[in-house]
Amino acid sequence: MKKRWICLLVENDIGALARIAGLFSGKSYNLDSLTAGPTEDETVSRMTISLTSDDKTFEQVKKQLNRSVEVIKVIDYTDIPIHSKELMYIKISSCSNKDMTEVFRIAQVYDMQVIDYNPACALLQCVQTEKRNDDLIKLLQKCFVNRIEVVRGGSVAIEAIN
Amino acid sequence: MKKRWICLLVENDIGALARIAGLFSGKSYNLDSLTAGPTEDETVSRMTISLTSDDKTFEQVKKQLNRSVEVIKVIDYTDIPIHSKELMYIKISSCSNKDMTEVFRIAQVYDMQVIDYNPACALLQCVQTEKRNDDLIKLLQKCFVNRIEVVRGGSVAIEAIN
Repeated sequence: MKKRWICLLVENDIGALARIAGLFSGKSYNLDSLTAGPTEDETVSRMTISLTSDDKTFEQVKKQLNRSVEVIKVIDYTDIPIHSKELMYIKISSCSNKDMTEVFRIAQVYDMQVIDYNPACALLQCVQTEKRNDDLIKLLQKCFVNRIEVVRGGSVAIEAIN
Repeated sequence: MKKRWICLLVENDIGALARIAGLFSGKSYNLDSLTAGPTEDETVSRMTISLTSDDKTFEQVKKQLNRSVEVIKVIDYTDIPIHSKELMYIKISSCSNKDMTEVFRIAQVYDMQVIDYNPACALLQCVQTEKRNDDLIKLLQKCFVNRIEVVRGGSVAIEAIN
């Protein structure tokens, strides 16, 4: 089992997202994350998909995607250098004064921005790798049990420049 | 027609994304963007969906979502204060020395980070509102016709702190 990344160029029509997601669920391949957005060409959408799977399943996934009519191109990002980040919001509530000092320290150390605030509540914005975001959630959950709310955008990836 | 935002808490199972996306495409409601990611509770996924629609269609969408078994909660973000940003990568290729000066100027003015570079090619990372990202793509497309590659992550949204 290994973490995989796929970049998918698909035709920008209403049903494409549903069909792609359906292709994964129909085969019981679970996605770790999926992001979809328009590109510089308005007839084309670009998706970044991450999943954890063994080699055999992953080859099947790629084959299936290549066979789908709405798929223009499948690029396997697993073994090539990429830049990949995820936008995440974390809201921390019911903070004491001491808690809030902690929140600001953690934000500073881990390069998160405090983008909204009142004396009991802080909102952090964070653009880091998926792995690092996982770790930050664990850390904050440990410090502020049951008082955090997380919204994650899913990883967005692009090939590095050679 | 108006721009809408929905936050969706859904059960984190394999088919949920496909069923939600299928619900939209089955009714021919086109999504502007969709992001999905895990939350602080590992049995729950959170989606941010943006779409452009009239009031009547939007009410139908919300009703349908509320009726879906995998949906735990639907929150309409349209008329409440939210923070919403989108992570975007833009790669600009085949740059002359003069072009590259322009790239660095634009990056500085519009608060984008140059995260990868060689003398002919630059990669920009940008975390801004969907609207502003639209404008930046237009600007860069005008300056560097057919030499830009865009990857957008879709908007991620969270309620503002009162």
